[in-house]
This record gives sequence, structure tokens and C-alpha cells, in this order.
Amino acid sequence: MGQQAHGQPAIGLDIGGTKIAAGLVDAHGTILQRAHARTPGTSPALVEQAVLDLVERLRHHAPGAPVGVGAAGWMNPETGTVLFSPHLAWRNEPLRDRLSALLGGTVRVANDADAAGWAEYRFGAGQGEPNLVCLTLGTGIGGSLVSEGRLRRGRYGLAGEFGHQVIVPDGHLCACGNRGCWEQYASGNAVGRDARELARANSPTAQTLLDAAGGDAGAVTGALVTELAAAGDPASREIVGTAGRWLGIGLANLAAALDPGTFVIGGGLGAASALLLDEAEAAYRRHLPGRGYRPFARVRRAGLGADAGLIGAADLARLDAAHRTG
Amino acid sequence: MGQQAHGQPAIGLDIGGTKIAAGLVDAHGTILQRAHARTPGTSPALVEQAVLDLVERLRHHAPGAPVGVGAAGWMNPETGTVLFSPHLAWRNEPLRDRLSALLGGTVRVANDADAAGWAEYRFGAGQGEPNLVCLTLGTGIGGSLVSEGRLRRGRYGLAGEFGHQVIVPDGHLCACGNRGCWEQYASGNAVGRDARELARANSPTAQTLLDAAGGDAGAVTGALVTELAAAGDPASREIVGTAGRWLGIGLANLAAALDPGTFVIGGGLGAASALLLDEAEAAYRRHLPGRGYRPFARVRRAGLGADAGLIGAADLARLDAAHRTG
Repeated sequence: MGQQAHGQPAIGLDIGGTKIAAGLVDAHGTILQRAHARTPGTSPALVEQAVLDLVERLRHHAPGAPVGVGAAGWMNPETGTVLFSPHLAWRNEPLRDRLSALLGGTVRVANDADAAGWAEYRFGAGQGEPNLVCLTLGTGIGGSLVSEGRLRRGRYGLAGEFGHQVIVPDGHLCACGNRGCWEQYASGNAVGRDARELARANSPTAQTLLDAAGGDAGAVTGALVTELAAAGDPASREIVGTAGRWLGIGLANLAAALDPGTFVIGGGLGAASALLLDEAEAAYRRHLPGRGYRPFARVRRAGLGADAGLIGAADLARLDAAHRTG
Repeated sequence: MGQQAHGQPAIGLDIGGTKIAAGLVDAHGTILQRAHARTPGTSPALVEQAVLDLVERLRHHAPGAPVGVGAAGWMNPETGTVLFSPHLAWRNEPLRDRLSALLGGTVRVANDADAAGWAEYRFGAGQGEPNLVCLTLGTGIGGSLVSEGRLRRGRYGLAGEFGHQVIVPDGHLCACGNRGCWEQYASGNAVGRDARELARANSPTAQTLLDAAGGDAGAVTGALVTELAAAGDPASREIVGTAGRWLGIGLANLAAALDPGTFVIGGGLGAASALLLDEAEAAYRRHLPGRGYRPFARVRRAGLGADAGLIGAADLARLDAAHRTG
């Protein structure tokens, strides 16, 4: 029974602000079937209905498959309650219980960065590394911590918010209400913000950026800057390089605290830019406390791309189900 | 056999730069016998001989008792090797093997902050809190992390160096070679440095400090400032309060990353100043990311004082011995 449950496929969902990606995932992390839907507004009931529809479609292929749901937000892993979600209207929402009642079977809820990090540990760039820090660089910095082969969530399930470590006192204002959070310096948003500021200042160095954005400084995005940096635009390379340097300083901070064997960097910005990762690794090596007396952690690009969240959510659900029946 | 080993007393040693404190400690963390010696210079062989003498004295009361040794430095817990120790001449020293050969029986080596944190978790202010961060504020900031009831050391045994997280870019130079490390802002050394600077500037606000130091600005210490702050000296209160504020900002950073249920603060500065802890807790609550949507961790003063290191080292050795024979 345990073996059977251990080997069975599971369904993973990654609920984003605009899209819900779902997949039926086998025990090796391979996606067997996919489904997706638009996120139907922020109402919990509508989102739960959309999850139900996707699960029913995928369960045609695997009746009774366990379900893992990853979403941005703070989950209490013991109770399955969402304390808070930034782009969904969940506040103290008993998500796991509500989905269990709707779906039946095993339901696991997880923070999206935790799900992605777990997938990288099990099937991606962190395989074989039981002490792993995984970062997802997008609008902010998502983070997760695997130590001694297990996802570590802290007392209330809220660990891994590395992006909100203050790294510049009185620095840029962050959506969390603090100033100087790491993610204000080393995320896609940070790259876009710096580039727009340069473009708005009518700096001659920003001409390529402005041209590429049709002359509208406000239309410059982090993704555009990353693309132009890869194509060799000097201003874009400086901006991405600066973000990479901040990324590396933060990696050194995390190494001081957590001493992982490997850092895995994913997300839109992390995946897009070799320059960013090169600069980050150089700054990490320059700033690691005790450099010279200790090994350096490996810095690796994530291996599973945008699928990491749903693969990890499915795997966590599968392991939960195996644990219950095994 | 397991039960017997589990209940037997163990010997703990805390090797400092000037003194080695040792004790025979029972399974409840009570020190049954004490012994101590001056640290005989930095030579590994001399230090090991001093350890042998102390252990032999204590083993009169408990023949064959397991031995735990805590010291400042980086230990690889798997190999028992000291990678680096700041005030002893240990560089890649196979300390556990050498002590095992000298002493016989179970020998455990541990970082001193880990030993102290473990003692607070088992017998002190962190009892009952399986997700704990323990800080020792002295010349720097020692740190340890207990998660899900176990000491977490990271990949190479070097986790918990929270004091070397950069919190002020290009800030004060740290002995680690970086600038702006947390311990340059929230340790006993930070308090002393700020007070000496004020006194050297001939600030009228520093008159009480200068008088207490016999008119010699260079003789102002962190301990003196803490004492004067407790007695109400306004300048000393401001300096300690500033260190407390930095301490609290760092606690919020650690909460973002690790989400502990409790912080335990010990060490010379931590134990001495209610003002420091009050300011730290206020700043922590002001800076915790997600404040309002999540519980606050408790901030508690350490319970075991200067004995924490030897008690924790003994307990770790006792558990190692029980594990081997149980």
C-alpha cells in the first residue's frame, strides 16, 4: 500500500495572480498531463472552483490522485490555513480543509517558493544536496530552505522570506512596509526600476533602452533590460550587474546564517541572465565570511523553469499521501 | 544500556581565549562538579593537555564520562575537525580524533555558540521551543539555530554566523574582512566603540562616561557603558538603545528567513541590559515583515548565563554516547 501510494502520480497546481498552472506529475517529477486556467479574480470561492475544475480534468487520468496546491502567501503547514496572500483575497483562509471537502483525498497546500525549491531539490538543480537554499527571482525574491533533506518552515510556516531581509538601512521602500529589503535590490522589479529611472533622467546611456521601449521610459521592464544586457547594451549590463552584485552580497549573508552546500537560482530574472549569475557568484565569493577557510557553496541556475512550483506541489502531496497510507 | 547511557552525567568544557571552564553535568543540565584552568597560550598541544587534566579531575567523580568540548571556531560536525578558531591556533585541526586518543570514550566537539544555544533549548529560556534562534552578544554575536528540535549546522557545520550578515553596506570594518556586519552594530564591542568615539570627541554628553573611566576615553568598555546606562546616564542609554535598535532590526531579518518561535539573547551584553532587550524587541516588532498578519516570536533573556556553553557541550556529548550505546 505504501509502495503503491509512493509510486502513484499526483496533481500539482501553481496558483498565480493571473494564471493557474496544473499538471499530473509522476514519482520522477515528469509532467504526464497539463491543464491551466485564468485565475478568476481574487475571490476564494471562485479560485477554489477553478481548482476543482482543473483537478477533475486531471483526475480523469488518475482517479483519486493526491493534490498539492502552491500559491504565493503564508501557509501554516500544520493547519493548512493561508494567513495571507499578496494577490489573492485569502486572509486566515482554511484552504486545505475547504479544498479537501471539495476534492476528497489528500490535499497539501504550500507556499509557491517552497514548492519550487522542493522540486529543485528532488528533481532539479539541487538534486543530491540536502542543504539547499533555493531563490526565485521575479517581481520579488521567493525563497525556500531545505536542510538535512527536509523543507524547513519555521515555527509558523513562514520561513524563507529572504527577500525581506533588510540589507540597506533606509533604502528603497518595499511593499512589505520596510525600507531596504534585499528584493528591492536583486529582483526583476529592481532591475526595471533602476532602468526606468535612468531612462526618465534622459541619460544618453539609456538611449538603447528608451528606443527598445518605443520612447516610453515607463514601458521599460526588467525583462527588457535583461534581454538588452544579453545583447550587449552597456547601460543594461551595468544595471543587471549591479543587481547581480546585490544578489551575491545577499547570498553571502545567507551562507553566513545557513551554510548551504548549494544555492539554486530560478525565476524569470534568475533564469534569463548568465551575467546576473556570474556577477552574483563573484560578489558572493568576495563577501563570504571566512572565505579562504571554508568551502564555497555552489551557485546553480534552476533546472525546472516555470514548472517547478507545480512539480513540487505535486511531489509534496504524493509524499503526504504515501506517508498516510504507508 | 541506552537508558543508562542516557541518564549518565557527562563532562562539558568551554574553551575561551583566556580560560577553560569545565563541569560534570547531569541529564537535567545541573552542574555537579566544576573545574577550570587558564588557557595555556594558543598551541593546540598545550590546550589539549589542559583539557586532559580537567577531564581527569572530573572523571574521578564519573569514570568514563563522555566529554563535550565547545570552543569559538568552525567545527565540521561529521569529522570533528576545527577548520578555524579565532583565538586558538587551530587550523584544520582534527580535534575530536586527537582528544579521543588522549581521553578515550565519546568525545564531541562543538562551536561554543551552538553549545550555548543547545543548552538554552534543553534546560534554559528556550525549553519547549523546537524552533529557536539563540544569540550570544559579547565581543561579537554568536548564533545558533534549533529547528524542529535539532541543532542545524548546514552543509559544512558553519551555520549560525548571524553576526556576519551584512546589514549596513560599506559600514564599519569587521574582523572578518567585510564591512557593515551586524555584530559591528549590536554587540558589546559596538557599544564600547561608539562610547569611546563620543568620549574622544570631548562631547559634553560623554562626561559621565569619561569620569567613570578615569578620564581615559580609551578605557571605556561596553560593560562600563551598560552599567552606566542602567544607572541612568543619558549618553550611555542612547548608545545602548541604538545597539538595541540594530539588534531588533537583525532579529526581524532572522525572523524573515527562519521564522523561529523564540529568540533567546544571552552573553555579556545580552544578560546585562534590560534596556537593550526592550529596545530590540520594539525594533523587531516595528520591522518584522508581515507584522499584523503573523504572530511575533518571543524575545527572551538567556537563562543559563556563562555556564550555557559547558552545559550544552556536556549534553551533546551525553546524547552522542547514548546514541552509540542505545
